[in-house]
Amino acid sequence: MRILVTNDDGIHAPGLLELVRVLAPLGELIVIAPERQQSATGHGITLHKPLRMAPVKLGAPVQEAYATNGTPADCTILATADGRPAPDLVVAGINAGANLGEEVLYSGTVSAAMEAALQGINSFAISVTAYEDCEFATAAEFAGTLAGRMAGCDLPADTFLNVNVPSLPPDELGPATLTRLGRRRYINSLDRRVDPRGHSYYWFSGEPLECDCDEGTDIAAVRAGMISVTPVYFDMNFRGARRHLKELLDGLVE
Amino acid sequence: MRILVTNDDGIHAPGLLELVRVLAPLGELIVIAPERQQSATGHGITLHKPLRMAPVKLGAPVQEAYATNGTPADCTILATADGRPAPDLVVAGINAGANLGEEVLYSGTVSAAMEAALQGINSFAISVTAYEDCEFATAAEFAGTLAGRMAGCDLPADTFLNVNVPSLPPDELGPATLTRLGRRRYINSLDRRVDPRGHSYYWFSGEPLECDCDEGTDIAAVRAGMISVTPVYFDMNFRGARRHLKELLDGLVE
Repeated sequence: MRILVTNDDGIHAPGLLELVRVLAPLGELIVIAPERQQSATGHGITLHKPLRMAPVKLGAPVQEAYATNGTPADCTILATADGRPAPDLVVAGINAGANLGEEVLYSGTVSAAMEAALQGINSFAISVTAYEDCEFATAAEFAGTLAGRMAGCDLPADTFLNVNVPSLPPDELGPATLTRLGRRRYINSLDRRVDPRGHSYYWFSGEPLECDCDEGTDIAAVRAGMISVTPVYFDMNFRGARRHLKELLDGLVE
Repeated sequence: MRILVTNDDGIHAPGLLELVRVLAPLGELIVIAPERQQSATGHGITLHKPLRMAPVKLGAPVQEAYATNGTPADCTILATADGRPAPDLVVAGINAGANLGEEVLYSGTVSAAMEAALQGINSFAISVTAYEDCEFATAAEFAGTLAGRMAGCDLPADTFLNVNVPSLPPDELGPATLTRLGRRRYINSLDRRVDPRGHSYYWFSGEPLECDCDEGTDIAAVRAGMISVTPVYFDMNFRGARRHLKELLDGLVE
């Protein structure tokens, strides 16, 4: 099995090395990751500047490893550069910080997995729920088990798995559970500051306000100390559109 | 009605000014657009550098206009910076180049509209099918009509409209039609080059290969010279997951 390992936290992020460690026994690894932090880059790809990838030494058992100036979705595409065979599996992570609910739309890590699914390649994204002092070992172990399962089993079309693991030591971590995406609304407060030259700038400091965090959601699962496994399906068609949009579109569309 | 006009082609793109022209009679306009081309940035937001917006003169009937170093999704969020009231409508475009099928996942223009929908604001993205010598007038006229309709009518939750208009003069343009997202698979060929210092780099030169371009898709509609109006719904939950993923996840999740 040929496995691409990528992330959005960058080639030197500790979560990436944890993945490499557990996935190496499963097959041939290629690592392509951003040269720097690329959180929240969404599903961007690089069309307007030269895209580069430079070999790096990871000090880990991988066949090839590269740092790129591109996005996480670029990493998935770059896996087949220069005639390389397509990977059988793409694993993105281990992300420092959860990717729950609609955060899948913003997350670079999740987008790398989504790009794989677009190409018909099995994939999952995996995150731990802390930003610092992350407990990666339990997440890594789960990633290894899941990757092994995927060797013999294709996901349905246009689908990938989004896994979130509470940052807890093994004896405190609950079981894995199949979840759906919850929902958070961010209050996008923009923190305005002034630079030394007198020009203003902003930092996002959004806080989640309301939630669909009912039982069954990824949000509820990780709050309860469980590993959430959320199948994400990116057919975004609106069912029953003609009926629901009748008033708006009447006479305007055929 | 307070309307945010944005795009991913940048503050100086001609399609943006066409939108401003047709939307100005409908209410109070605020324009926030990237200072430079941001195509294919996906749903990225700016967390790791200072986000700026600078007033610009557009020579057009707008109340406020700003160029930002951020992404199109940032533009939607910036609309409420410094206590500004939330817009009633976000219109993104007019994009030079179609955004069909799964291109909605990559398009910055579409992501600006999606970010609005996430915030519960009516929105649509509008694109013309040419990159150069675009026929913007017919698309602008349709945008004006649709925006007027939206003044009195809310879209369903988590939904926005993605409109694609063939770049044709009015007498050759067909009617508008309600569509679903088609499907293209890109063969991501990476064009490798070498810079004057001997370092290699890549340009994407992907071409669409297979399509779901059956009748009813956005792709089929614009090919037939019609305006496609596609409701996009971003609940990405996979229905029937437990049944479909039984083999993969049996014993692994609760």
